[in-house]
Amino acid sequence: MPSQLESAMDALICVFYNYSGNEGDKYKLNKGELKQLLNSELTDFLMSQKDPMLVEKIMNDLDSNKDNELDFNEFVVLVSALTVACNDFFQEQHKKKAK
Amino acid sequence: MPSQLESAMDALICVFYNYSGNEGDKYKLNKGELKQLLNSELTDFLMSQKDPMLVEKIMNDLDSNKDNELDFNEFVVLVSALTVACNDFFQEQHKKKAK
Repeated sequence: MPSQLESAMDALICVFYNYSGNEGDKYKLNKGELKQLLNSELTDFLMSQKDPMLVEKIMNDLDSNKDNELDFNEFVVLVSALTVACNDFFQEQHKKKAK
Repeated sequence: MPSQLESAMDALICVFYNYSGNEGDKYKLNKGELKQLLNSELTDFLMSQKDPMLVEKIMNDLDSNKDNELDFNEFVVLVSALTVACNDFFQEQHKKKAK
């Protein structure tokens, strides 16, 4: 049986291909596929953001090779940044409570 | 209910604190805690590596602020690198099969 960490790593890979396979290059997320992924997988995060250009901005920020698509490596940068931000938030809350 | 991606992000945070809380600074992994984490969570990866200095090398490589401990941000760099390596491997296998 895979460990909790192995399952999480596996899930990151599965989520990416669930959306990248929809159209065009199946190993990359285009803007529409990224939008679908964010809408379905990060609904609360997206709802908390009021910026209508958010998907465009995320794409521009992460698309390091400027091909207007995100490959898996670029996607992992997004997930890492969001996870670190979540952790910072929870750690801050926890430290406040502990005082 | 959290999405698959949210669950995976949550699992990364949980795994880290399951081990970082064992001794010393509970927000950081020391060398012993890192070794426990790798042994329990990435058994197959660790078994495939023959280098007895592996844990020391991982610690040195990731410990960007040189405090001899890994904080969550440094841990995410390890998980990202391993996930990208897994993905590269599977993508390569998949492309070979498709030929």
